[in-house]
Amino acid sequence: MSDRPLSDINLAHTLADAARTVILPYFRAATLVSDNKDSAGFDPVTEADRAAEAAMRDILARHRPEDGIWGEEFGQSRGPSGRSWVLDPIDGTRGFISGTPTWGVLIALSSDGAAPSLGMIDQPYIGERFWGDASGAFLRGPQGSRQIRVRGTGDLGAATLFTTFPEVGRDRDRQGFEAVADKVRLVRYGMDCYAYALLAAGQVDLVIEAGLQAYDIQGPMGVVEAAGGIVTDWAGGPAQAGGQVVAAANAAVHAAALALLRPFAD
Amino acid sequence: MSDRPLSDINLAHTLADAARTVILPYFRAATLVSDNKDSAGFDPVTEADRAAEAAMRDILARHRPEDGIWGEEFGQSRGPSGRSWVLDPIDGTRGFISGTPTWGVLIALSSDGAAPSLGMIDQPYIGERFWGDASGAFLRGPQGSRQIRVRGTGDLGAATLFTTFPEVGRDRDRQGFEAVADKVRLVRYGMDCYAYALLAAGQVDLVIEAGLQAYDIQGPMGVVEAAGGIVTDWAGGPAQAGGQVVAAANAAVHAAALALLRPFAD
Repeated sequence: MSDRPLSDINLAHTLADAARTVILPYFRAATLVSDNKDSAGFDPVTEADRAAEAAMRDILARHRPEDGIWGEEFGQSRGPSGRSWVLDPIDGTRGFISGTPTWGVLIALSSDGAAPSLGMIDQPYIGERFWGDASGAFLRGPQGSRQIRVRGTGDLGAATLFTTFPEVGRDRDRQGFEAVADKVRLVRYGMDCYAYALLAAGQVDLVIEAGLQAYDIQGPMGVVEAAGGIVTDWAGGPAQAGGQVVAAANAAVHAAALALLRPFAD
Repeated sequence: MSDRPLSDINLAHTLADAARTVILPYFRAATLVSDNKDSAGFDPVTEADRAAEAAMRDILARHRPEDGIWGEEFGQSRGPSGRSWVLDPIDGTRGFISGTPTWGVLIALSSDGAAPSLGMIDQPYIGERFWGDASGAFLRGPQGSRQIRVRGTGDLGAATLFTTFPEVGRDRDRQGFEAVADKVRLVRYGMDCYAYALLAAGQVDLVIEAGLQAYDIQGPMGVVEAAGGIVTDWAGGPAQAGGQVVAAANAAVHAAALALLRPFAD
């Protein structure tokens, strides 16, 4: 046993490993237990969600008792350090209950409301993990490990756009999304948090969503920004609190999307 | 070297293995070469698509010279046996060029226009393969191998529906889809052929699509039917030629969907 403390990024890997172990037995299991947290919008929460957050909280209590935690399932607590671990144990619960490998474990570390300094998106079924911090952004998956970086598409007409729309959002949100969707080369749906991972890995150019919580966006935001991308709200302001979010591969495509989204910003 | 011929299912595995090897180096590669076969609808074809079909055709020429081949890339040839191998080397090219692990290698074996007696859906990046024949339906993936079977959801109001809509389809197709989408519990998009694999594996209840080619549907159809599901066109007739297709987990949910789709059948 070493007394040397885990670095933040190694602790994040430890958290994601624990979440994987807890969640995988529930994925595609016939005995899946789910609640219906929001009966109007169908937002199921599974036993796996709760168990995984509990497992991550146990680890944080041992290794970072001075840090706060903001988790989807068990709420927000502050710590004396001013730092917070922002956790969404299963982002993309609709995908999870449908068996798609597009949901993810989201982990971020942020301080006093600032943008996350560390972000992680883990897809346990594929065995694929995307993360980023000040040292860059990385992917470890079925084909090994490598550094990742956003791509340089500068023209909206050549861009690929991902979103969870048409499934989520108010009419106003949908109108903003469609203003951009009408201009891009390709629109794809249904990828949950995996869309941000693809953006960070240089595969797609834009992700546009609305109605997000802080724990939905901070993990992805940390990965995308570490890979060189830009994440803001639809008015161009900070995105770490959630709401209407646009993630872009670069400044040119971000500016082009923002010009179309601003009229629909809250 | 053995003179014993490969069984049909083992030959299908050999084809899928060859396609995996050819395709994976192209997936998420920066040098991806793609054409634009249908400039209106954006239907890219990649070098990987062509190379994988060529590799599968080479194997079939050695092992089944008497069988015909119907492939997406290189067309249709008949053989004296009356049997045909129906190949779509990369189904879901939009997903492929976006980096999503939802595209698949589709393989089917059918005779003289009948429903396929064997079907296979392979997702090379995840390393996940779904197949079926007279002996049942099976999955081999990151968590091992198992037999799969459709589930028993009998009520449309409890069903999960997948489609590629709103991306594909004429207005008439979209209206049929929406008639069913309005009645189900959950609608998901963007899964390409992977949606049929999830249906066969008992994770979802319905897949509704339109504008399909024979090589888009025969592989999935073989898997779904071997898992106990039902695949027809929107009038309840044979689906192996493509067109408007509904795949259902069981007779009850199939009948309920068909009642809503029939008014929009071609």
